[in-house]
Amino acid sequence: MDGQNRIPRLDRLPRSVELEREDGLSSLKYVDQRKLPQELVFERALTWCAVVDAIKTLAVRGAPAIGVAGAAAVALWANNQAPGMSGGGGGGDGGAGEHPAGGCARAYRAELDRIAATVIDARPTAVNLKWGVDQALSLARRLIDRGVSGAEVADRLFEEVKRLEAEDEATNRAIGARGAALLPEDSRILTHCNAGSLATVFYGTALGVVYAAAAQGKIARVYAGETRPVGQGARLSVWELARAGIPVTLICDSMAASLMAQGGIDAVVVGADRIAANGDAANKIGTYGLAVLARHHGIPFYVAAPTSTVDGSIDTGARIPIEERSSREVLPRPLEGVDVWNPAFDITPASLITRIITEQGVFVPGDRRGG
Amino acid sequence: MDGQNRIPRLDRLPRSVELEREDGLSSLKYVDQRKLPQELVFERALTWCAVVDAIKTLAVRGAPAIGVAGAAAVALWANNQAPGMSGGGGGGDGGAGEHPAGGCARAYRAELDRIAATVIDARPTAVNLKWGVDQALSLARRLIDRGVSGAEVADRLFEEVKRLEAEDEATNRAIGARGAALLPEDSRILTHCNAGSLATVFYGTALGVVYAAAAQGKIARVYAGETRPVGQGARLSVWELARAGIPVTLICDSMAASLMAQGGIDAVVVGADRIAANGDAANKIGTYGLAVLARHHGIPFYVAAPTSTVDGSIDTGARIPIEERSSREVLPRPLEGVDVWNPAFDITPASLITRIITEQGVFVPGDRRGG
Repeated sequence: MDGQNRIPRLDRLPRSVELEREDGLSSLKYVDQRKLPQELVFERALTWCAVVDAIKTLAVRGAPAIGVAGAAAVALWANNQAPGMSGGGGGGDGGAGEHPAGGCARAYRAELDRIAATVIDARPTAVNLKWGVDQALSLARRLIDRGVSGAEVADRLFEEVKRLEAEDEATNRAIGARGAALLPEDSRILTHCNAGSLATVFYGTALGVVYAAAAQGKIARVYAGETRPVGQGARLSVWELARAGIPVTLICDSMAASLMAQGGIDAVVVGADRIAANGDAANKIGTYGLAVLARHHGIPFYVAAPTSTVDGSIDTGARIPIEERSSREVLPRPLEGVDVWNPAFDITPASLITRIITEQGVFVPGDRRGG
Repeated sequence: MDGQNRIPRLDRLPRSVELEREDGLSSLKYVDQRKLPQELVFERALTWCAVVDAIKTLAVRGAPAIGVAGAAAVALWANNQAPGMSGGGGGGDGGAGEHPAGGCARAYRAELDRIAATVIDARPTAVNLKWGVDQALSLARRLIDRGVSGAEVADRLFEEVKRLEAEDEATNRAIGARGAALLPEDSRILTHCNAGSLATVFYGTALGVVYAAAAQGKIARVYAGETRPVGQGARLSVWELARAGIPVTLICDSMAASLMAQGGIDAVVVGADRIAANGDAANKIGTYGLAVLARHHGIPFYVAAPTSTVDGSIDTGARIPIEERSSREVLPRPLEGVDVWNPAFDITPASLITRIITEQGVFVPGDRRGG
């Protein structure tokens, strides 16, 4: 096989988010994931508000991807503050002048803090969003304190986001390599939601493990749970896996137990949106149930996530906020007398997680010595 | 409260299937369950073929309901063979003459056997379908052996189906009474698929338990899993529960585990499509996973079903045929490179079932002494 046809066909996967700048105008190019799998459509956010909107509407989703997008939102805001760039169609916050360190430095910084907080609030569960915004925010604050110009803040934030993008891919490839080593030959993997290339800048976390293992010829098949109600498995994971040439079977979330009982699954590999200090992991609703089922059937349950997903400020998963989303996601046409419960995430206790796979090492939850 | 407003409001629930006869013309009136919850539409099957079609397309579904519908299919065939009734628009099998016991008795009986086998084949998993058809078939054979006329065979089969309809409701009310006694005050019940009034002639099995308990003021809330891919929970259970005035919350199937972990469920109550001699139970895909989750969380798991669901000829659940349905149910628009697995049922081992609730008694699987 030549390089073009080798599996996984990573050359066929898009970059999910990519900050670009042309003639001083910055934009975040992103895959509108709401349009998949029917169409691969790229959109451009020109303002920080447009990025927040893309995150809230799930056009851009996936913990690592929204982390970088959050940083990009801050960078777009800063760029739109720079001379000749104020406004920009929806994100206009009033020009803060050329020298934020001058008389209007305090206003600039207050506005920066306000924008950052608003971006972080776009979605509450994934800590990566806060992490990404904080990366940009702390850099901007340092620059402002040093009295650099608004234009330079914008330049440096642009570079920072590009660094985060590259770092995300490198992190995912490291996670993939560490995770692949855990999988047996001819692995049949069950995954949930989309912790794939689409959920990151590129390559993926849980599916990064799959791609790395596939490159070693170790993947027989991936089973993707459709992931109701939003369908990240049915719409996104199957799309990217098929595109990358990985044998993939779509199942309803409720079919995982039967598949396990039939001996059809060798390992469960999922991502995470936030990991508490004790190893409890928040991830897409349905993950916890799979962990219980995996334990019942003696199947290893792996969580693959960058260390930026670890929230050391939270001791256990009980303190992770769980986003509840609109009932319309579950029941598009309301029915009289029928309530809906729609939590977007659940908490898998550390005790049910066989290993947490990060770019820095593979951990047994509760045992941080690594491996 | 007056009788009209007492919960459950059973007066607001339709009879799912009802054999009728007017001027010698028989028809099976049924609720087209594909149109729920948007519209409550009654249809009429005039021929046995139309009944088979209704069963295959899930217009009529639910193990007890298709059992009675299967018997009705045989009755419709017999009626259409009677003088002046041959044909009937789609089910025409050639008139067998007035006296099946005469020269054409052998042909009549062969045709009867063929029709019965075809009806049974409409869906493979629920044993009630075979049970219902066999009730009608054995009566018809006895009558033919006694040399009665085709018209009398038709009359007697009509009466037999009406008896089965009444027996179904009485059976369900007995199941309900026995099951209600098992539930605590202020019960929060999780159910799956629709083992409700719609799945039977009237009243329901699993939801029969709910209705009986609600009449005693013991039901705080029912959580209905949406039951992908066909949505019997999202479309049918929530509709009939709300209509009956029971507080009901719709969840995605993958949310059950979180709800259990939060202490939100006091008991799981489901129906069954076939129960093996050892107590293993086939039911809608997703049931087995709920049983594992219930065990993990220390929640009782009840299967409510008539004794006609027990298949004594099968020793364990491993021998129950599992219907696989079209991939289009899961993925309406096929995606290149994406396979689909769509089993319609799964097997819950007896060891995970706390009690099997039948009209004859409550059993601990593996312990047939009853209670």
